[in-house]
Amino acid sequence: MRIEGISHAALEVTEAGVVRVLDQTLLPHQVVWRELAAARDAENAIREMWVRGAPLIGVTAAFGVALAMRVDASDASLQAVCSRLLATRPTAVNLAWALGQMTQALRTLSEPSRAVAALTLAKGLAAADVAVNHAIGAAGLPVLKAIHDRKGRVDILTHCNAGWLATVDRGTATAPIYAARDAGLQVHVWVDETRPRNQGASLTAWELGQEGIAHTLIVDNAGGLLMQQGKVDLVIVGADRVTAGGDVCNKIGTYLKALAARDNGLPFYVAAPRSSIDREIQDALCIPIEERSPREVTHVQGLDADGILRQVQVTPHGTRVHNPGFDLTPARLITALITEHGLIPATSKHIEDIFKEAHNYA
Amino acid sequence: MRIEGISHAALEVTEAGVVRVLDQTLLPHQVVWRELAAARDAENAIREMWVRGAPLIGVTAAFGVALAMRVDASDASLQAVCSRLLATRPTAVNLAWALGQMTQALRTLSEPSRAVAALTLAKGLAAADVAVNHAIGAAGLPVLKAIHDRKGRVDILTHCNAGWLATVDRGTATAPIYAARDAGLQVHVWVDETRPRNQGASLTAWELGQEGIAHTLIVDNAGGLLMQQGKVDLVIVGADRVTAGGDVCNKIGTYLKALAARDNGLPFYVAAPRSSIDREIQDALCIPIEERSPREVTHVQGLDADGILRQVQVTPHGTRVHNPGFDLTPARLITALITEHGLIPATSKHIEDIFKEAHNYA
Repeated sequence: MRIEGISHAALEVTEAGVVRVLDQTLLPHQVVWRELAAARDAENAIREMWVRGAPLIGVTAAFGVALAMRVDASDASLQAVCSRLLATRPTAVNLAWALGQMTQALRTLSEPSRAVAALTLAKGLAAADVAVNHAIGAAGLPVLKAIHDRKGRVDILTHCNAGWLATVDRGTATAPIYAARDAGLQVHVWVDETRPRNQGASLTAWELGQEGIAHTLIVDNAGGLLMQQGKVDLVIVGADRVTAGGDVCNKIGTYLKALAARDNGLPFYVAAPRSSIDREIQDALCIPIEERSPREVTHVQGLDADGILRQVQVTPHGTRVHNPGFDLTPARLITALITEHGLIPATSKHIEDIFKEAHNYA
Repeated sequence: MRIEGISHAALEVTEAGVVRVLDQTLLPHQVVWRELAAARDAENAIREMWVRGAPLIGVTAAFGVALAMRVDASDASLQAVCSRLLATRPTAVNLAWALGQMTQALRTLSEPSRAVAALTLAKGLAAADVAVNHAIGAAGLPVLKAIHDRKGRVDILTHCNAGWLATVDRGTATAPIYAARDAGLQVHVWVDETRPRNQGASLTAWELGQEGIAHTLIVDNAGGLLMQQGKVDLVIVGADRVTAGGDVCNKIGTYLKALAARDNGLPFYVAAPRSSIDREIQDALCIPIEERSPREVTHVQGLDADGILRQVQVTPHGTRVHNPGFDLTPARLITALITEHGLIPATSKHIEDIFKEAHNYA
């Protein structure tokens, strides 16, 4: 996608083999690329949230493995880097999935061939992510087109950032939106600011702005009213982990929007690649919910009047905070999953079926 | 209630007749009292949100009328000040109610007697507000006590600030909580931060802290997950306007918490005085929803590392914002209204009944 009109991906590999990521903690105020020179940099990039978003976390971890293989391609090294990377963030299952893909492939290779193979594999996962997201876009497009045919425009509400910044490119929840734009439909996006980290206000608003897609920022509290007032046609969000039964773990606050959509008779879609599905987990309440720093709630980062990036404290000193990063949206509230294998109902049968399909983007 | 251990009300009248209010735009960082010397100061206090909260807006407006009567007690002056005060904020009906009470009483008096009478009336409305809130506390206490008897503690979720800062004293949604504390129950409050103005983070957390009541701040997105995890026993919120049929207009985001409470089988209470009921309005969608400044969403105010109060910009430059201040919670989602006339179902019949009651706190 575009930054100031120039094509970029959220993770790029230069011709010289340098891996770099956009530091998303500084957006929308500063565009800073950070080189991942070693596995530790990849770990740090995920932990410090230079990169975030389930698919991008997975791909970044794959490059972390590749970087480790350059230094030490032993089984011990492979196991160590995977376990360190796995510990960076607990909720998104794409991390475990990508590490599983890398381990499975590399284990069978001789040590000397692992470094080159690992880089090729990681690049493959990155390319597959982009292909998957285009397929998600194609799968979701008819939904938007049907609404557009009826009313001449589509108003989509989205939560957090499941945009191209959450993936290598194109995004998951945004993929149908970009596909609709490319198809000439008039789209408008209601962007939840997504407290506490404001990924909507700082990332989704920024990427949609860069792509010239009409959007309006709202606080997370406002979506329900907009639905009551008939200003929303549908909701599309991403996912950090989908259970075998179709329950969805996604950014905190997603569940509330699903409830509001249901109460107002509006469709609620979850756009996610197959790699976000965790077939091992039946009960969504068993998904580990990351508890993040209180400072994300007590302090807010932004530009002051002099254009300096600062954090300000909103709360009384010493206020106790609970800051869970994700919540659970039961399958019963989900109209369909938008996957690279098409639109599927959020049921265990339909989910199981897509794992039987021969076509595998990775 | 207490500030640094000293008893205060959100609006105070000194023995010398000076009216002053706590400037709530500076909380929790600075405790600054502002004198209301003229009617324009009262208008300004409401418009700039030094005072906010439906009951406190009403009482402040009453003092605004009293201040106008000191200067010019004519019918024209009375009408003019009421119409200016009415225009300060559109949603809370207590404003119109208080102005109605003042006008009705003053119109029948001779001009020379109006100034003294108006001050007495305004003081009477302030005193009645406190009495009403104590009655709301008493009405809500058995609900909390029943939960406490069962599990040895009560976890209440509240949204925005319907605390003593939203009234003259004691609060509406907080009144049962303070009553429970006074009765020796172990209470803990989940405080929604309440974007965009953060009244939960800056006001509710502060006032509960000053009162020594256990509380934990969460982002507005988190309440649904906490309910899913069984960490919330009930929700209590305030109201800016209640329709004849029991629908509730309250701070944006209230509706989402009501939906989550319903989905998790939890009781959802609205604490509000009779003066928040608008018997003229049948359809909640007809209540004027205040559209507030985009800056409330794009910028956040807080203390920087040097202890200086600053605003920082979170969003990309030029981001379009929609900032409605209130939403609508249908009566069907409300377990009961907690009023000074007791706990009543949110139905037109029960609402009509309390207007037939002889006892009138004002």
